[in-house]
Amino acid sequence: MTSTYSKDAYLPGYNQVSHHEWRTSENSAAYLLPTLQTRVKGFPALTLLDVGCGSGTITASLAKYMPEGTITATDISSEILTKARSFATKAGVGNIHFRTADVYHLPFEDNTFDIVHASMVLSHLSDPVAAYKEMLRVTKPNGIVANRESDLTAWSYYPRLPGIEKFHACLLAIHEASGGQTEAGPRMVSWAIEAGVPREKITATMGTWMYATLEERRVWGGSLAERVRVGEGTKRIRELGLATEEEIREMGDAWDEWIGTEDACHGSMHGEILIRK
Amino acid sequence: MTSTYSKDAYLPGYNQVSHHEWRTSENSAAYLLPTLQTRVKGFPALTLLDVGCGSGTITASLAKYMPEGTITATDISSEILTKARSFATKAGVGNIHFRTADVYHLPFEDNTFDIVHASMVLSHLSDPVAAYKEMLRVTKPNGIVANRESDLTAWSYYPRLPGIEKFHACLLAIHEASGGQTEAGPRMVSWAIEAGVPREKITATMGTWMYATLEERRVWGGSLAERVRVGEGTKRIRELGLATEEEIREMGDAWDEWIGTEDACHGSMHGEILIRK
Repeated sequence: MTSTYSKDAYLPGYNQVSHHEWRTSENSAAYLLPTLQTRVKGFPALTLLDVGCGSGTITASLAKYMPEGTITATDISSEILTKARSFATKAGVGNIHFRTADVYHLPFEDNTFDIVHASMVLSHLSDPVAAYKEMLRVTKPNGIVANRESDLTAWSYYPRLPGIEKFHACLLAIHEASGGQTEAGPRMVSWAIEAGVPREKITATMGTWMYATLEERRVWGGSLAERVRVGEGTKRIRELGLATEEEIREMGDAWDEWIGTEDACHGSMHGEILIRK
Repeated sequence: MTSTYSKDAYLPGYNQVSHHEWRTSENSAAYLLPTLQTRVKGFPALTLLDVGCGSGTITASLAKYMPEGTITATDISSEILTKARSFATKAGVGNIHFRTADVYHLPFEDNTFDIVHASMVLSHLSDPVAAYKEMLRVTKPNGIVANRESDLTAWSYYPRLPGIEKFHACLLAIHEASGGQTEAGPRMVSWAIEAGVPREKITATMGTWMYATLEERRVWGGSLAERVRVGEGTKRIRELGLATEEEIREMGDAWDEWIGTEDACHGSMHGEILIRK
């Protein structure tokens, strides 16, 4: 660490951009873009299903690549879809239809979409293989299933503050206790094969999220400090007895210190697959 | 694991391509290519120094992007430069000059090169800050220093065979015992600032190597199995008392099993920086 921590350095920007809003197709679905662009060139009226779209920022970003196409975006939470709808309107994107749906029971006919996309969805599921089967069902023959999921164990960051190491351990414990998959990234090929896909129809790569500039550190560190301090995150830490009150404070403070450290950075690793149906 | 291990599945291809030969500018220096292409467009007779070029495959690959430019490629080992020279000749690349040199004492005037590149070099050094200072010294004002280094701790892979976990622990222990940097990737911004670079002149990203197809698994798993079985690697494991003979066999066998597993994959995470001098 070559710089000292200053609370004032980050506070004004603390909540300007949430991490979910930071996500775009360029930083979170780059592995899909060349294929999407090729397919759009051949067939501009492409249909794309975005499963578990959350706040819909990647969805709106994908829509730019298919101005004559149509996106259907689903999420299990109708509350988050209200946010996603409003984000799309603000972004001036008109070709997205939002619909509440469960990934295990997608309310669409077989062979409906040219591309089915999901980002950071299967890692939250107890049965990712069933999700792939369902996503493949609604994909047209010769269509594409595109999916990116994190390996929560694979973090690369500096400085290695004890409070951040503690936070990382809590994050993994909460994810496991909630029935999620901590190592989804490298498991995706395996799940796709279990869902009946021949290996040669799968292209597997890896991507990263990297936060290094002050603005990036505010987005990432700010969203994680917030998880420790308010809402579901801090509630779960207490419920599961993962940390004392003092440790909870230490974790939040560690993210603040990390944000305020000029040479800090944080990288996380994600698996990516393209499945040709 | 959905497939069973078959020794015959990988053996024929075992040593067809070494991992060093697999490296190209596209899979190992993609973060530099847009900048390189822009600079070449403005000034085709660009000069590039490739520090610690090793077997020179990335060097030869970079040369394709600057047909009217000149590359100088150095390495501390004159033996490996013989291989690199022969690789360049075979690849039909004529604009690379090879020269034995120590990264701490580069035999060039100040402000000589438009771009100075190093891949997986600083992680082997005890004083990476001194290396940055020396690389910056020989870079022209407004030139670029480009560097990619791994975070050896951040592996994302499947299946998590105990023999591979053991291998990973040995790799880290050997690297540390040799005075190298196991977590170079996320430290590079910090080192550059220590070398006197203002933060705003640094762009930091992260990249990955990913091995998932049978051919890729042969390249990666084959090179690591070889390290356990012959040469410097196995010698160091014994010298440092990191594993018993049985464990050494287990580690080699684990890589064989991994290569033969249809849904296996392995990702590693690397820091990347571009410094504008």
